[in-house]
Amino acid sequence: MTEFELIRRYFAAQTSSDGVVLGVGDDCALLQPPPGEQLAVTHDTLVAGRHYPFETAPDAIGWKALAVNLSDLAAMGAQPRWFLLSLTLEQAEPAWLEAFARGLHGLARQHGIALVGGDTTRGPQAIGITAIGSLPPDIALRRDGARAGDAICVTGTLGDAALALQRLAQSGDDDAALRERLDRPQPRVQAGLALRGLATAAIDLSDGLVGDLAHVLAASGVGARLDAGALPMSAAFERLHPPSQRLQLQAGGGDDYELCVCIPPQQLAEAQRRLHAMQLQLSCIGEVDSAPGLRWQDGLPAQPFSGYQHFG
Amino acid sequence: MTEFELIRRYFAAQTSSDGVVLGVGDDCALLQPPPGEQLAVTHDTLVAGRHYPFETAPDAIGWKALAVNLSDLAAMGAQPRWFLLSLTLEQAEPAWLEAFARGLHGLARQHGIALVGGDTTRGPQAIGITAIGSLPPDIALRRDGARAGDAICVTGTLGDAALALQRLAQSGDDDAALRERLDRPQPRVQAGLALRGLATAAIDLSDGLVGDLAHVLAASGVGARLDAGALPMSAAFERLHPPSQRLQLQAGGGDDYELCVCIPPQQLAEAQRRLHAMQLQLSCIGEVDSAPGLRWQDGLPAQPFSGYQHFG
Repeated sequence: MTEFELIRRYFAAQTSSDGVVLGVGDDCALLQPPPGEQLAVTHDTLVAGRHYPFETAPDAIGWKALAVNLSDLAAMGAQPRWFLLSLTLEQAEPAWLEAFARGLHGLARQHGIALVGGDTTRGPQAIGITAIGSLPPDIALRRDGARAGDAICVTGTLGDAALALQRLAQSGDDDAALRERLDRPQPRVQAGLALRGLATAAIDLSDGLVGDLAHVLAASGVGARLDAGALPMSAAFERLHPPSQRLQLQAGGGDDYELCVCIPPQQLAEAQRRLHAMQLQLSCIGEVDSAPGLRWQDGLPAQPFSGYQHFG
Repeated sequence: MTEFELIRRYFAAQTSSDGVVLGVGDDCALLQPPPGEQLAVTHDTLVAGRHYPFETAPDAIGWKALAVNLSDLAAMGAQPRWFLLSLTLEQAEPAWLEAFARGLHGLARQHGIALVGGDTTRGPQAIGITAIGSLPPDIALRRDGARAGDAICVTGTLGDAALALQRLAQSGDDDAALRERLDRPQPRVQAGLALRGLATAAIDLSDGLVGDLAHVLAASGVGARLDAGALPMSAAFERLHPPSQRLQLQAGGGDDYELCVCIPPQQLAEAQRRLHAMQLQLSCIGEVDSAPGLRWQDGLPAQPFSGYQHFG
C-alpha cells in the first residue's frame, strides 16, 4: 500500500463540512471562514507511551487525538470547523488504521467537522492534530480575564483519568467507567459555547487542575483559594480511589479535559442553568482573589504535584 | 527548564504579523482572516533521519521544516500568514533550540509571518508545522485544472538536493551550493503569487518531478510528454552530477521545492516576464496532452524511479 492509497482509503472521503472548498488531496486545503468571524487554531501532538499507554486501542487513540484538540477549542468558546492530521507510524497495518480512523471520524461526526488535510510519515508512533474553529470577535474565553471575586468552576468530575492510569500501572485492573474517561474524553465544546458572554476566563484541564489554573491566574494577575472538599468526584472515583491520594489525583492528575472557568457571581446562576440543560455538572471549587498565588481553603499553598511537563 | 519556560524563551516573542489577535500562550491562537478571502492550510511533519540527515545543522532543520510548508502554500498561490509548530525532541538543549529557532524565525521574517501556537513534547525528534495562508476566492492554483496544450514549466533548477544527498551518502563530500539547496530550500512563494490567473494547475516538487506531476495529470484527467533534455540544471549540478544518473536525480529525486506549473501558451510570455522580474528562471519542460500517462519525448513511459513514498 503506497502512502497515497493509504490516505485515500482511510482519510480522504470524510470531508463533508460547511466551508470546505477543497479537502484532502491537493497541496493545501481551501477553507471559507464564516464572514466576520475570527479563527481559533490549536495543535497538540500525542506520542505513544507518553500521552497514552502503548496498549491503548487504536480507535481510542484516534478519538483522543482529536478530543484533546477540540478541548482547546472548547476552552476558547470556539465552534469547531475543520482539522488536519499528521500521522507518524512504524508501519501501515490496515486493521490498525481502520480502527484508528473509526475513532477519529466518530468524534469528528459528533461535532460535524471535517478532516481537510495533513500528512502520513513513517517513524515512531505519534499523532498530531491541528484543529481550527471560529467565533465572533471579542467573545473568546481567554486566560487573562479572571477578576477578584469570580467563582472558579469546573465541568464534570476530576481525577477519573488519573485514577485509571494509576490502576493500570499498579495492578492492570480496569474499571470500565474510569478507563472510558482516560481513553475517550468528551471535549466540552457545547459547554464552551454556552459560557460565551458569562465566563471571564477559561482553560481546559489537560495537565492537572493546580498547574492549569495557575496559568489563568498568572495571565490575569490574580490569585485564588480552592476548596479541596468541593472537587467533584464521579461515582467510580468515589468508590475506587485511595483516600490518601484523592487530592493528588484530582488536583494534580492530568487528562481530565474538563473546562475550568472563572465566572462573576452575578452570572453564576445563568451558567449553571445552561450547563444543567445539557446534563453537565458545573461545580464551584473556589474563588479568585487579589493575593497572588493559589492556596487551599486552609491557606496552605497549592503546588502542582507532578504537573504534566514534558521538559520538566 | 520546564516546557513553559522553553516555549517562552524561544517561541513566544516572535508574533508580530497582521491578523494576530492572540498569539502563543492561550489554549488557541486567535486570528483575523482578511475579509472575503479563503484560507489555504497545510501540514507537513519532518522526521529526523527520514526527511533530513541526522547530522543536519539545527538552524537548517528549523528553516527547512517551515520551508516545505510554505512551498505548499506557494503551490496554491496563497499568501502565507501564520504557522504553528509541533516540536518533538528527546531533550531540550538550549544551544540546539537557539539555532533551530534562529533558522525557523529567519525564514518566517523573510515572509512576514508569525508563529502563533503549537506544542512541545518529548520523544524521537520530529518537527510538524501547520502553515496557514489566504487568497481571494476562485483564484487558487489547484491540481485539477491542467488542459491539453498547456506548457509544463518548472521554476529554478532540478536535482540539486538529490545530488547533495547522494554525495553525502557516498563520500561525505560537501558542495556548498548543493548542500544549501538540500538544507535551505527557498519556497517559491512570490512565484506562486505571480502565477495567479496565469497557471491552470500547480504542485510543488517535494517527492520528485515524475511522481508529483503524475498527481496533477491524474487530478486533471490528462497526460503529458516531457523533454528530458530540457530539465534545468544549476551550475553545480552540471559540474558534479554522474551523467548516467542525470534523469534519476532530476526527475526522480525529491526535495527540490520548486513549482511545477501548467500554463496555456497564450499566457506563457507574461508568466516568463513576471518570474524573470524576480530573477527566477521558468523553464518549459513538456506539454500536456489528452493521452493518459506521462511519457518522455521518445514515447517511453516516465515512471517514478524511487518516488518518495513513506509507506511504499
